[in-house]
Amino acid sequence: MSELALISWIRRRLRPDPRVLVDSGDDAAVVRAPRGALLLKTDTVVEGTHFRRASARQIGHKAMGKPLSDFAAMGCRPCFALAAVGLPTATSMARARGVFLGMEALARRFGVRIVGGDVVVTRGPLFVTVSVAGDSGGRRPILRSGARPGDSIFVTGRLGERKHLRFVPRIREGLALNRSGRVHAMIDVTDGLLRDLGHLCRESGVGAELESAAIPRAPGASLERALSGGEDFELLFAARDPGLRGATRIGRIVRGSGLRLDGRPVAERGYEHRFGR
Amino acid sequence: MSELALISWIRRRLRPDPRVLVDSGDDAAVVRAPRGALLLKTDTVVEGTHFRRASARQIGHKAMGKPLSDFAAMGCRPCFALAAVGLPTATSMARARGVFLGMEALARRFGVRIVGGDVVVTRGPLFVTVSVAGDSGGRRPILRSGARPGDSIFVTGRLGERKHLRFVPRIREGLALNRSGRVHAMIDVTDGLLRDLGHLCRESGVGAELESAAIPRAPGASLERALSGGEDFELLFAARDPGLRGATRIGRIVRGSGLRLDGRPVAERGYEHRFGR
Repeated sequence: MSELALISWIRRRLRPDPRVLVDSGDDAAVVRAPRGALLLKTDTVVEGTHFRRASARQIGHKAMGKPLSDFAAMGCRPCFALAAVGLPTATSMARARGVFLGMEALARRFGVRIVGGDVVVTRGPLFVTVSVAGDSGGRRPILRSGARPGDSIFVTGRLGERKHLRFVPRIREGLALNRSGRVHAMIDVTDGLLRDLGHLCRESGVGAELESAAIPRAPGASLERALSGGEDFELLFAARDPGLRGATRIGRIVRGSGLRLDGRPVAERGYEHRFGR
Repeated sequence: MSELALISWIRRRLRPDPRVLVDSGDDAAVVRAPRGALLLKTDTVVEGTHFRRASARQIGHKAMGKPLSDFAAMGCRPCFALAAVGLPTATSMARARGVFLGMEALARRFGVRIVGGDVVVTRGPLFVTVSVAGDSGGRRPILRSGARPGDSIFVTGRLGERKHLRFVPRIREGLALNRSGRVHAMIDVTDGLLRDLGHLCRESGVGAELESAAIPRAPGASLERALSGGEDFELLFAARDPGLRGATRIGRIVRGSGLRLDGRPVAERGYEHRFGR
């Protein structure tokens, strides 16, 4: 794999975009500033830590999908991405291109333009860091901290499916929820329902009561997996009813702290391993 | 090393900043959008590839310094940084903190706020990806492509010093050069003077003539090292004379293509290994 040949190939693939004023190739990319506030997020995936047997495209998909899912959880719009890739010395050109293609396909689906990056060689496992810049489209980002007693708790999709290499970030749902004006707090389910609901409740200074029978499970998924499996990348949010379609009501926000499941206290459990989310 | 403890320590160190509306800890950071155009840049350093024997602080310094130097080369102002760190399993907390402290010290020196990041564990060598967002402060970014025949070629500082772990990005000089309104094209010297001048000339559609006696060399540096050593992180620019203090005139831009040294054609040489710069 020649880094120069890969870079040249990537540059040829980048399509003209009216938002991009100076493209990859100068010292930095220059783009039109997003409207209103600027949102920034970075995420890294490492072979052996975040995935094992994965195709190159799946790796690229996951690397791009993680920060995009964070934008969904803010109800905000991702616009531009920077992609840094560490490639083991023996990586074939086909595999290197595959990682880029996986990132690019998902980015394009949501109107995100890759505007720059870095390709480096490593003696270690493959890694990809994707950084995303975006805006709130004139609305306020939905934080984790706005849940209020009396809110209902909703989740999109179904939990426990273990779709960590093929999830679709809920960008459109997040934007629609923001437009609805009814959502008080939101997070994406990456560490497990109980863990992420715990984050949301702590940030909001509230407690939560869940009904196990209401939790939408993927086919074949146990309740335990739906509660703590992680990497669902669905949206979990606290909102006023009613009229929020496409999401399932699974409980309610209460005064106090801690989580209860079917009336009994339940421990937060799942994964927890990141800074800045 | 506990990732959670490290993340908690990092968050406690982040100082309040009026530009930061939602800090690290939610799904994404929310900051005030820069004035005018938005600039974006990412760079990665990997142990064994970009450095070998280096202290933790030096690693952090270098990781932050590389994208900041790109902002200098655009004559633009870096504002916010995202830092993704891959730590080998056996990394001590002291070393992990040291990497962060190296990044933070350099960032703070230039008014850059770290607003988010990611800490992951890797079986491989340590790596750091820093992504930076900034603006042009109401001016136009200085590209590589604006050099014109008749321009003088200047370089800041001295070349050939091999200061790859302790360079200072020429942010202030870059901003001052942009304000001067006299600089037509600029690049930072990272791959070696001849290589980077070659980039600038190709992007501008011009050639260049250098005078070897005029090239400012670090004490003890051979001419060859000054010409092709790389990682000087000085600014190389094409501008109209006179009155540009703090920089040395080393040659001139001419019609045509290719580089000449003391009247003879000279090959571009140095390092070349990145995408997006």
